[in-house]
Amino acid sequence: MEVFARSSGSSAIPTSALARVAQPVQSQLNEVETRIAQQAAAFDPAIEGYVTYALGSRGKRLRPLLALLSGGASGGVTSNHVDLAVIVELIHVATLVHDDIIDEAERRRAQPTVNARWGNALSVLLGDCLFAHALDLSTQFDNAEVSRTIARAARDVCSGEILQTQRRFDLHLAIDDYLRIIRMKTAALFGCACEIAAVLNDAPPPVVAALRQFGLRLGTAYQIYDDCVDLAGDEATIGKTLGTDLRKGKLTLPVLILLRSAPAAEREKCCELILNGGSEAIARQLRRAAADGPLAESVTAARVLVGEAEAQLEALPASADREPLTTLAGSIRDLLARLSV
Amino acid sequence: MEVFARSSGSSAIPTSALARVAQPVQSQLNEVETRIAQQAAAFDPAIEGYVTYALGSRGKRLRPLLALLSGGASGGVTSNHVDLAVIVELIHVATLVHDDIIDEAERRRAQPTVNARWGNALSVLLGDCLFAHALDLSTQFDNAEVSRTIARAARDVCSGEILQTQRRFDLHLAIDDYLRIIRMKTAALFGCACEIAAVLNDAPPPVVAALRQFGLRLGTAYQIYDDCVDLAGDEATIGKTLGTDLRKGKLTLPVLILLRSAPAAEREKCCELILNGGSEAIARQLRRAAADGPLAESVTAARVLVGEAEAQLEALPASADREPLTTLAGSIRDLLARLSV
Repeated sequence: MEVFARSSGSSAIPTSALARVAQPVQSQLNEVETRIAQQAAAFDPAIEGYVTYALGSRGKRLRPLLALLSGGASGGVTSNHVDLAVIVELIHVATLVHDDIIDEAERRRAQPTVNARWGNALSVLLGDCLFAHALDLSTQFDNAEVSRTIARAARDVCSGEILQTQRRFDLHLAIDDYLRIIRMKTAALFGCACEIAAVLNDAPPPVVAALRQFGLRLGTAYQIYDDCVDLAGDEATIGKTLGTDLRKGKLTLPVLILLRSAPAAEREKCCELILNGGSEAIARQLRRAAADGPLAESVTAARVLVGEAEAQLEALPASADREPLTTLAGSIRDLLARLSV
Repeated sequence: MEVFARSSGSSAIPTSALARVAQPVQSQLNEVETRIAQQAAAFDPAIEGYVTYALGSRGKRLRPLLALLSGGASGGVTSNHVDLAVIVELIHVATLVHDDIIDEAERRRAQPTVNARWGNALSVLLGDCLFAHALDLSTQFDNAEVSRTIARAARDVCSGEILQTQRRFDLHLAIDDYLRIIRMKTAALFGCACEIAAVLNDAPPPVVAALRQFGLRLGTAYQIYDDCVDLAGDEATIGKTLGTDLRKGKLTLPVLILLRSAPAAEREKCCELILNGGSEAIARQLRRAAADGPLAESVTAARVLVGEAEAQLEALPASADREPLTTLAGSIRDLLARLSV
């Protein structure tokens, strides 16, 4: 069983898969990169360098992609959607900077994290700055609903992270609670990117709602995928420290399924390993154990969510350019397939 | 020389002084307290408790007071001003939660800090949540200028904190740079509270500008006062850990003046103490040294700023109820006087 594709470059999504999905909005994605790079100039000269560093490590730009493709599916991509794409990515980067403090992560996107390079104090403040700047940018639309939805998504992301932090090493975490946490910490911003893209096109309420639900479900599926990669992926391929979840006591879907499905004796051994854990050996042992049934079951759950996301697109008018969003959902499905074959 | 009044209760401003200033808006201040307490309900039930704890330790509520009194001076206090007061206090509390992580502070407002009680991870996320919630609330006015000004003030506060963090233990910090830092980290939110209060009353631009400048100058004076208290105050009286600035390498106005005015030999000794410092004995020695000329000079600088703030009020129309703001400025002047007699 090849647990994870080894050819995916520096991000969890193979560049080739993303390039295909991004093709219809490539010029706007390039514009997003340019505008992201320009944001550092909004800060004090003494701070610019840190902002450039945090924003410069190119991630997958999945949230910008969602904003642009949702714009295309709800009436057309405008300059407003490029701005929205910049804003959601800034919020995402701000939360990553803070997550890396909490996880004591040393590498992110194949370069040292902000906390590894300049310490926690600067990281706390830099995340705050990026966050405040994103919310400042969100007020340019002169539509309070846009800023409100973005601020609420940001609050949900942080609330989800708090819940996750609270439930570390909680072997009684219910799968429903896990799902609620990832809906908040990840899916909320996906849903927001899709929803606001439609709002910016003055799309009718059913289109706004359908795109929001598309984003929420795709975001949940994506987080399950990401959690599986942390357990079963290859560090050199992914370009970030893996196995972090278990070491930090974050119980993700495959582990929760393992705990529920394993025979009593094995289950007890696993619990003990999790609670006394921290070593790479323990993570490996759990990765091996979870790579079989529990991993496949997690992948199935994520596939169901991708299907639900696609079903939302059927609510869009026949004239809508929904094809690129379908392709994006398909590429997440492909990634899931590569995890389980 | 009585360096600091010993009768000021649990905050740096004597309750009696504040009660006199707050009298014209006491019922609205009570409403602010009620609404602050209600904010916890906007969060997930598992998070409510932390929010209540962070918001419950009653501070001086100086920023809410500024918002209300500026509302009164620009046309009248409305329910919108109560909301503004809640928002600026939430942002202030969010930054305090993050500051306490950076300063490794253990007590704040006479109770354990959030980081002392629940650790840094939760504190990072709780600060983020409070911040996002405040910006969510700011969108209720359906005036993007309000949200924008608040988001920019928040960004300035965090940027000021970064600059301060960068310049720790920098014995070459210029007094102008110190002033720029405190204008960002403290005065920006004071100025925002005053400015937006006028905007919410649709006050003419000169009134908006005058109130903003009033807030900026009063905020700068207040931070100088606060920095002097950290050096010369009494811990039991103030209700928070003092001497923190020097231990953390934050060079505040009295110390900067001391370094510039002391004879070469004494100056060298002081520099050495600061750089090798950390112990309470060193802080005491520097406090003694700075309590004389440098402290008096700092107080004078703050008094000048209070005067400049008051001068701004003269730009308000004759009909404006500027008296309460003058009283507030006067109470800051009184506090400064008590520091230097």
